[in-house]
Amino acid sequence: MKFTVKFLPDNKTVEVDSGSTLLLAAEKAGIIINSLCGGDGLCGECQLQVVSGNAMAEINAITFFSKYEIERGYVLACRTKVEDNLTVLIPPKSRAEQEQILLDGAAITYSEPEKPALHRRNREPAFPFDPLVKKVYLELPPPTLEDNVSDIDRITRELNKVSIYDKFEISLSCLQNLTEKLRAHHWKVTVTFARRNGGGRILEIEGGDTSDKNYGLAVDVGTTTVVVQLVDLKTGKLIGVKGSHNLQARFGEDVISRMIFACVRGSLEPVHQAVITNINHLAQALAAENHVELKDITAIVAAGNTTMSHFLLNMTPCAIRLEPYVPTTTVYPQVYARELGITINPEGILEVAPSIASYVGGDIVAGVLACGMADKPEIQCLIDVGTNGEIVIGNKEWLVCCSASAGPAFEGGGAKSGMRATKGAIEKIVIREGHVTYETIGKARPRGICGSGLIETIYELVRNHIITPDGKFDTSQVDPRLVNENGELRYVIAFASETETGEAISISESEIANLIKSKGAVFAAIKSLVDYVGLSFEQLETIYVAGGFGSSLNIPKAIGIGLIPDIDVKRIIFIGNSSLTGARLSLTSINAFEHSLKIARRMTNIELSNYTPFMNEFIAALFLPHTDAKLFPSVHYQV
Amino acid sequence: MKFTVKFLPDNKTVEVDSGSTLLLAAEKAGIIINSLCGGDGLCGECQLQVVSGNAMAEINAITFFSKYEIERGYVLACRTKVEDNLTVLIPPKSRAEQEQILLDGAAITYSEPEKPALHRRNREPAFPFDPLVKKVYLELPPPTLEDNVSDIDRITRELNKVSIYDKFEISLSCLQNLTEKLRAHHWKVTVTFARRNGGGRILEIEGGDTSDKNYGLAVDVGTTTVVVQLVDLKTGKLIGVKGSHNLQARFGEDVISRMIFACVRGSLEPVHQAVITNINHLAQALAAENHVELKDITAIVAAGNTTMSHFLLNMTPCAIRLEPYVPTTTVYPQVYARELGITINPEGILEVAPSIASYVGGDIVAGVLACGMADKPEIQCLIDVGTNGEIVIGNKEWLVCCSASAGPAFEGGGAKSGMRATKGAIEKIVIREGHVTYETIGKARPRGICGSGLIETIYELVRNHIITPDGKFDTSQVDPRLVNENGELRYVIAFASETETGEAISISESEIANLIKSKGAVFAAIKSLVDYVGLSFEQLETIYVAGGFGSSLNIPKAIGIGLIPDIDVKRIIFIGNSSLTGARLSLTSINAFEHSLKIARRMTNIELSNYTPFMNEFIAALFLPHTDAKLFPSVHYQV
Repeated sequence: MKFTVKFLPDNKTVEVDSGSTLLLAAEKAGIIINSLCGGDGLCGECQLQVVSGNAMAEINAITFFSKYEIERGYVLACRTKVEDNLTVLIPPKSRAEQEQILLDGAAITYSEPEKPALHRRNREPAFPFDPLVKKVYLELPPPTLEDNVSDIDRITRELNKVSIYDKFEISLSCLQNLTEKLRAHHWKVTVTFARRNGGGRILEIEGGDTSDKNYGLAVDVGTTTVVVQLVDLKTGKLIGVKGSHNLQARFGEDVISRMIFACVRGSLEPVHQAVITNINHLAQALAAENHVELKDITAIVAAGNTTMSHFLLNMTPCAIRLEPYVPTTTVYPQVYARELGITINPEGILEVAPSIASYVGGDIVAGVLACGMADKPEIQCLIDVGTNGEIVIGNKEWLVCCSASAGPAFEGGGAKSGMRATKGAIEKIVIREGHVTYETIGKARPRGICGSGLIETIYELVRNHIITPDGKFDTSQVDPRLVNENGELRYVIAFASETETGEAISISESEIANLIKSKGAVFAAIKSLVDYVGLSFEQLETIYVAGGFGSSLNIPKAIGIGLIPDIDVKRIIFIGNSSLTGARLSLTSINAFEHSLKIARRMTNIELSNYTPFMNEFIAALFLPHTDAKLFPSVHYQV
Repeated sequence: MKFTVKFLPDNKTVEVDSGSTLLLAAEKAGIIINSLCGGDGLCGECQLQVVSGNAMAEINAITFFSKYEIERGYVLACRTKVEDNLTVLIPPKSRAEQEQILLDGAAITYSEPEKPALHRRNREPAFPFDPLVKKVYLELPPPTLEDNVSDIDRITRELNKVSIYDKFEISLSCLQNLTEKLRAHHWKVTVTFARRNGGGRILEIEGGDTSDKNYGLAVDVGTTTVVVQLVDLKTGKLIGVKGSHNLQARFGEDVISRMIFACVRGSLEPVHQAVITNINHLAQALAAENHVELKDITAIVAAGNTTMSHFLLNMTPCAIRLEPYVPTTTVYPQVYARELGITINPEGILEVAPSIASYVGGDIVAGVLACGMADKPEIQCLIDVGTNGEIVIGNKEWLVCCSASAGPAFEGGGAKSGMRATKGAIEKIVIREGHVTYETIGKARPRGICGSGLIETIYELVRNHIITPDGKFDTSQVDPRLVNENGELRYVIAFASETETGEAISISESEIANLIKSKGAVFAAIKSLVDYVGLSFEQLETIYVAGGFGSSLNIPKAIGIGLIPDIDVKRIIFIGNSSLTGARLSLTSINAFEHSLKIARRMTNIELSNYTPFMNEFIAALFLPHTDAKLFPSVHYQV
């Protein structure tokens, strides 16, 4: 039996067999729908709206939609079968073209900003290029009666001449067929080896010379976004980068709700699988685009917060969530890719950046590694703003850190028009005399506002006195952009006519309150930690700001809303995704990875959750820029 | 359809379904047939003789039989189906009762002789009791906000107080469910850990206190026999011992023919599986008899020659066989039991004693460890006589070794009446004025002659001038024990009427020639090595003699046939199965195992195969006791 499916707005109609999925129907119509998970109902990227006809949607897919959306016929294309003649509307965000253009060369927004100073500072001379996994081609002298050492000793004898290790571990499976391999390839082999426990670990021995093909992945496992860089481990060159929504989002927006799913409502396995799927899809896409074979990818360094690291390794994070906040481990074992079903070379290894505590993770250790603050005599500070805000203060003598829950606001979560920092996200805003001008990522038509855009929005609203310092709209003025939507006041940044989606981009009072809470939590954490170590802001030589706000951050505006301490802006450096930078440093330099383990051992975590001064600081910070204006002497809201 | 099977000599008849195996039919008749492999056609222990009727025997089983036996209707009970009315004769050796009595307590013959001096010398103080795998019960303080280190750090913090290791490795699988386990068991857990790379390796974490149940296996993987000791790792006490034929025998009597099977005629896998089956069956039998659960066995140390060690680990031994004789490795990785399908605790580990070269294996290193010669200033010598004869000379400063192929003669192979040193084996013989008196193992009716009995036989024959010093019968004398059997002269040790099997136990001229070749090869190797290092026999403070001859060895008689150098017998110590002793030492003392690794690194192998002096020595030694009588001044053949 056959049915027709009409796709809008393309106005294309196709005929398909009864029981076909909408994803298949779209493909038949020549329309490429987003699908990160390959049609497994995991990623939620293939959302369509059925506007007429009865579609058969799988009940499981319901978790991707709000009640509002369900009532309006939203379904996942991959989980919906055609059992009737249908008319279907494709929302712009579900078109694959959008995503693909975004991830192309120039439009890459996930990589850390190119700060030559940052790179130079770290790479030379502390972290020379010396990748975590190396391939060495060996032409061995064949054995004789005078030289009949064992096959593996013959290999390690040669390896010792070219490697920093004097001892090598080798797996049983690698040994079992070694004798034939050496002889079949006339004593010419390529040895792939990693570092482990201060020695070498032979991962694979291949016949012939394959040493020109050796690649690695640096992975930032963010709560919201997973970003993967493909790196040539022969040269250290960055070849490509791709990012995607963390597929765990279906189990909850933040780490807490995902932990509740894994530990209470559901189970760990699907949450673990989701992030593995993320990494596999990104690795496959990067490999395909850059003509790299997956089997030639031999190493991964992943950095993420402690919960994400646990999910990645399929470890129960169930004691992280509740007082006294205990992770299973903070130093992660080196595992084979095959142990986790990661589809690079099965003998390839995964290292996970070490954590400090339940709420100060490997992403922060990677950030400290990347900015170099643990190696200098001057006292510096790292502020990483994501769903949690983490702060590190210290120098080469000491390091203290803390974290505070900031909510998803700065990552574009929790606000109707919020979005992650991808193509079409408004990242810069100026409001002047009622006129709004903005810039979007990729110069595209706006689709929403990312973190850096939200910071600018708040700043511009309070500077223009559209909101008062406590975050409320000043309704005494008439402003055509201040509209009432379903009984709620919203300030319109972009009208429906300007946007890609055809919906206005706006912000409400409660969304502003959320952002103020978020910035308040981050600032209170910074202030508490500075007080704890008995310093003042002025004594911080440099403040590094990291986070997924977007490709840039307007520092004066971030100070202007009271997010960052009010010190000379020259001493504040935005370093973007420093977790990813740190992961790549570790991937390409054994010294850097070893150094990150040392940094983790040196850092002292200050638990803020029960720390009274923090609660006081938080309340004091729920004001723009702060209830204590003396803390922000340079901030004056002037149009 | 049903058929009858009559079992002789029991004269029991049963009716079975068409297609039943003879093993099943015997069981039905209440007759227990030997079956080490559990009916898989691997062990060849269930041989029966079909005397009437047509039995359907699997063609594969043919490898267990000689042409003579096949013609006489010999079959494997487990591989033969009943498709006719049959009459079947059960040979005494196929009855399970025999084997089981043999392996009971007092009849154990596989353990090394109790030489208190040997044990004391090694255990104190160099090797204190400190087993390779330990279980420690921990009651952990529950975490608080002031003490919220990770779960694994909480464990290792306590472990560090009771262990010699300051660092612990832990597998991913062990970490993955650790958080629940700790909390479900209220912070009371038992940690099982091993040593690895100088640190600790956590194998398992169990809830509650299981520390009173921890066992290990010491395994001697001999070419002919596999022997397993069950050891209590809480006390170091030896609980039980069992041995069985190496099931690899079906692939060849000696290592060379097994390598040819694995590398040329057949494949490696079944040869590997055979020895795993040996170990599993012996472990199961030991565990059942001693009321030990297999999951409580957490460690195995195996010692064997280099080829056996390769077979055990499923590593191709294919370059060992041919010049220039190269093993895959001489130091074996620590593997989990589950990796090899060994059915103890799956997280339990197997360590294999390190080898020196292709023909000087871990059994010799274990022997050097056991006799303590590597720790003394005096120069000592170890002679291990098996299918190969291996010699080690040295002291705490230096160690050299060599090996020579001796053939299976001293292990009871290659002679019609030869047998391994089990119940019913003649181990002592005296011939006086034509009368033969003998002693058997277990004081049972004789079934054959084991290695020590064969040495005594040769000695007694030449002493009584029944054979001449070149090993030929002196036919000038009339001796009723010298009989002609199928055109071959044989000297009868036990007449058919005296024996368990009803067949005479005797020896032929060609069998004597084989034994002379074996002793000649061993002596030539000793002489070559002593000459190589520029010493004389008199300069050897002690000679340790190891081997599977039997439970005892008559040293003067061994000197008398020219097997062992003619030095003061007080300086010659028979140490039995020193490979097994060394394996057990390593199992019960980390220091001992580490020491064996050092011994292996220190030993220098002298390759005799192309060494001209050895060939000359060998030819000179093919005489009783030797062509150069000056080498054996104390030997005079007097009745």
